[in-house]
Amino acid sequence: MTLIVALDKPQSLGLVDTLCGVASGFKIGVPLLLDVGLEGLRRARSRCSDALWVADMKLADIGHVMALTARRLAGLVDAVIAHGFVGLESALDILAEECRRMGMKLVVIASMSHPGSRIYDKVLEDVLEVIEAVKPWGVVAPATRPNIIRRVRRRLGCSVAILSPGIGAQGASPGDAICAGADYEIVGRAITSSENPLQTARNILEQQRRCRRACREPQQT
Amino acid sequence: MTLIVALDKPQSLGLVDTLCGVASGFKIGVPLLLDVGLEGLRRARSRCSDALWVADMKLADIGHVMALTARRLAGLVDAVIAHGFVGLESALDILAEECRRMGMKLVVIASMSHPGSRIYDKVLEDVLEVIEAVKPWGVVAPATRPNIIRRVRRRLGCSVAILSPGIGAQGASPGDAICAGADYEIVGRAITSSENPLQTARNILEQQRRCRRACREPQQT
Repeated sequence: MTLIVALDKPQSLGLVDTLCGVASGFKIGVPLLLDVGLEGLRRARSRCSDALWVADMKLADIGHVMALTARRLAGLVDAVIAHGFVGLESALDILAEECRRMGMKLVVIASMSHPGSRIYDKVLEDVLEVIEAVKPWGVVAPATRPNIIRRVRRRLGCSVAILSPGIGAQGASPGDAICAGADYEIVGRAITSSENPLQTARNILEQQRRCRRACREPQQT
Repeated sequence: MTLIVALDKPQSLGLVDTLCGVASGFKIGVPLLLDVGLEGLRRARSRCSDALWVADMKLADIGHVMALTARRLAGLVDAVIAHGFVGLESALDILAEECRRMGMKLVVIASMSHPGSRIYDKVLEDVLEVIEAVKPWGVVAPATRPNIIRRVRRRLGCSVAILSPGIGAQGASPGDAICAGADYEIVGRAITSSENPLQTARNILEQQRRCRRACREPQQT
């Protein structure tokens, strides 16, 4: 399975039951966490505990503070997302160690999906170096720029999972990121604001499958 | 007044009464916010409502999501901290507009205090350009590197407030950042872990005053 659903509003937590077993996982971010608190997250998770739960904290602080945040999420999520641009020393090194200790997957952002991310792009090489040193479970690279996904895959090999946001509201189509080498596509509003979220999720999975076949063919010739 | 106290643990919220009227303001970060929730923040604030309350969210997301987070904090804090690194377009432009609409002060990070921030430093010029365009109320620059504080002040003039973390546990002394041009020094563990937090806060203020006199003298000759 290749679909992570980004839940963004308290109402969208109702979709956990509907999408459990269809989506690979669920991503929840800071706004929703402020709305429902750690207890709300615990309840949501308990309704689909085998899914991959990702806390999209966009951690970008000194290591000590990022580790404190990650510790609050222990047992509530399987993975936490942090920014690569904060660097290694006294930052991601401390967070990675804390994640290992807790058995939590660390996911590091290599690049973002919005137009303003040109600063990020400028230092992509440095960020990839940091990621190589951190050896996280996963990397975030934007579906809106498949070239970056390809570059991450070439550079970091197949031992890392690539998670791609930017599908739907931000412009990429389901399957684009998979085709470029991503493992999971993260889809939010396209599903959560849909009239029939279950059918939309299934359509996205079907589109991903079709796209994967199509993008594999030229590589096999 | 020139001292903002960084509260980091639920117990440290007890210091709000003690330090009210001595510190200019209080900064609370993500770990503590996860511990006490928005309701805990509301209660803490009500005990010293004239202070400057800063939510150190280290926002680093697309504009839409950062604005959602800021909206959750409306009425609870006076200011919110975001990263300059995420850039202007579809990021800080949207957040700045939302902050203006809500009457919330926006504080943008120009540089960080830890050793791993060399990636940030590499693009300092780009980040300062973004900050110039955003015109935030305040900028964060590290007390551990006073040269960066001086550079921010020269570049952005006196219409912007400079907030400096890194005093105490991270190595800078009280007054160092003020002397380099900062308006507020942010002090956490040196006060919150002190046996007598009120006395420590007063000592820091005294040290800042002495330092300000000392650093002004050569400029007057």
